[in-house]
Amino acid sequence: MRCVNMGDIWFHYKELLDQVEGQIKKGINSKVSLINDVAQYTLMSGGKRIRPLLLIISAKIGSRFDQRAIVLGSVVEFIHTATLLHDDVLDHAKIRRGQLAARNQYGNQASILVGDFLYTRAVCLIVGMKNAEMNDLLSETCNKMTEGETLQLAHTRDENLTQAQYLNIISYKTASLISASCALGAMASNASSEEQKALAAFGHHLGMAFQVADDTLDYVANQKRLGKSLGQDLKEGKMTLPLIHLFSHCLKKEKEMLVDLIKNGTPQKKLSLILNLMEQYDSIAYSQKHAVSLVKKAKACLKSLPPSTHKEALYAVADYVVSRDH
Amino acid sequence: MRCVNMGDIWFHYKELLDQVEGQIKKGINSKVSLINDVAQYTLMSGGKRIRPLLLIISAKIGSRFDQRAIVLGSVVEFIHTATLLHDDVLDHAKIRRGQLAARNQYGNQASILVGDFLYTRAVCLIVGMKNAEMNDLLSETCNKMTEGETLQLAHTRDENLTQAQYLNIISYKTASLISASCALGAMASNASSEEQKALAAFGHHLGMAFQVADDTLDYVANQKRLGKSLGQDLKEGKMTLPLIHLFSHCLKKEKEMLVDLIKNGTPQKKLSLILNLMEQYDSIAYSQKHAVSLVKKAKACLKSLPPSTHKEALYAVADYVVSRDH
Repeated sequence: MRCVNMGDIWFHYKELLDQVEGQIKKGINSKVSLINDVAQYTLMSGGKRIRPLLLIISAKIGSRFDQRAIVLGSVVEFIHTATLLHDDVLDHAKIRRGQLAARNQYGNQASILVGDFLYTRAVCLIVGMKNAEMNDLLSETCNKMTEGETLQLAHTRDENLTQAQYLNIISYKTASLISASCALGAMASNASSEEQKALAAFGHHLGMAFQVADDTLDYVANQKRLGKSLGQDLKEGKMTLPLIHLFSHCLKKEKEMLVDLIKNGTPQKKLSLILNLMEQYDSIAYSQKHAVSLVKKAKACLKSLPPSTHKEALYAVADYVVSRDH
Repeated sequence: MRCVNMGDIWFHYKELLDQVEGQIKKGINSKVSLINDVAQYTLMSGGKRIRPLLLIISAKIGSRFDQRAIVLGSVVEFIHTATLLHDDVLDHAKIRRGQLAARNQYGNQASILVGDFLYTRAVCLIVGMKNAEMNDLLSETCNKMTEGETLQLAHTRDENLTQAQYLNIISYKTASLISASCALGAMASNASSEEQKALAAFGHHLGMAFQVADDTLDYVANQKRLGKSLGQDLKEGKMTLPLIHLFSHCLKKEKEMLVDLIKNGTPQKKLSLILNLMEQYDSIAYSQKHAVSLVKKAKACLKSLPPSTHKEALYAVADYVVSRDH
């Protein structure tokens, strides 16, 4: 069968993805019921499992699919979920995926600790595989993610953040885990070193596209489908591509007004004003185009791989990342 | 030379401990300066390096000291520091070791993220050694620590917490890492399986004693030397041994009053009242005795080891743990 859209993909990989789901449930087996409650609340809140999906498809590219990919699928989802739990505390988030963020249901303390639990559980699972290369990749990735998050924090409300600095931040905080997901899948299935590199590079560019698209949606998404209010990044002083573009293209007077809003005001109230300026200076279109060009780069990384259903599926996931409005 | 007190010990192991210090500094080398600032602020705030010390002495028990012990010394200190950073956010702590807690200097967000950074850096360092047994021990230990912390959170202001449940919590949150520090030292120096087990058991009981002593000091320490205000645990609703003992020995009427204070009042103001009751019912003395009996248990675990300076040093560290009033 062909895999040209996400519906095809969920259907085609259903059996393996169901196994990952089973593994995720199996991993939430603490003797401490509060941990299981918070972990389940967060893990079962409708996340799209993009990282396990990419890992499973990547594992199908190699010469023999290995059941380790199932466990690794849960590992990357645990790490992703750990970062969500901590992020929501960092961002004082109220809503996540259309429901109360775990911190509002269980408190900041439980969110921090269950984030720590999921991360340490993920490390237990991967070191249990006794594969030094995988251990190195995953631990370096997690370390990089904390650096990306901290760099973002250090540049909160920094009107001088450049596009290059922004791209560096999202490379660390987001693209690194998506790249690692693809690479781990390749490693688990005995893919050649070239295939591993190609999939890691694909994941990197796809992860960049994903974050740029996400940051753009924060300004223009269908709010109901987004599952949270628009303009959150602005409110938190997160400098993302649409805003960075606007800053570097608007008039000096407008920039001064924007800086003032971001530093002192309650910018969410001024969202429509900022959106008008973004419209005027094509900042949203610019960011969307940037995401599309990153998807193109991602796809180009797979050029050397022979045609297959799995390669087609990776292309379709890549297209999905920049087409979604939720 | 003999090692009968902490002064002797710091002198005897100075060279190796200095190497651990060097390794700790080397590990704080992020490209993100905020990470280095927060990590240095916390790691250089006068921590006693008890875990690296125990690791180094334990590594001297084995047949050949291995330089991996130096790196492992930094690993356990990084993990300990990561938990301090998160704990201070969880506890809304103002002061740590006589100076502003990192969260008051750099904010909660930086404290959470730099905790994550130190933990992930520790994992990078240990997996870099490519020793499956060490990886398993450390990752399981870290996972247990998060379970202990969450269990403690789940029992905040729980007047029905039993002594057995309390001992289980501190076994997970504190004793596990101290036990692992001793065991990792043994593993790094090719100690026999019996020596490893003996040192792990020693570390477990010592860790228990350490936490019981610490929890007792929270009520009766010399405040200036403690480096924070008395009665913090009470204020945060942490049920520790002196309070659990008091609850199970005081009159029903007194218990009702205490429960009310803990659940609704501002118990720190009532600290002297609670201390009087603890005096009356011997709750402080009971806890101190319990800590001493745990130290005795710890020492007994080393019975089978031949006499040596290093064994003597471990005994001296054990005595120190229950004698300190800071």
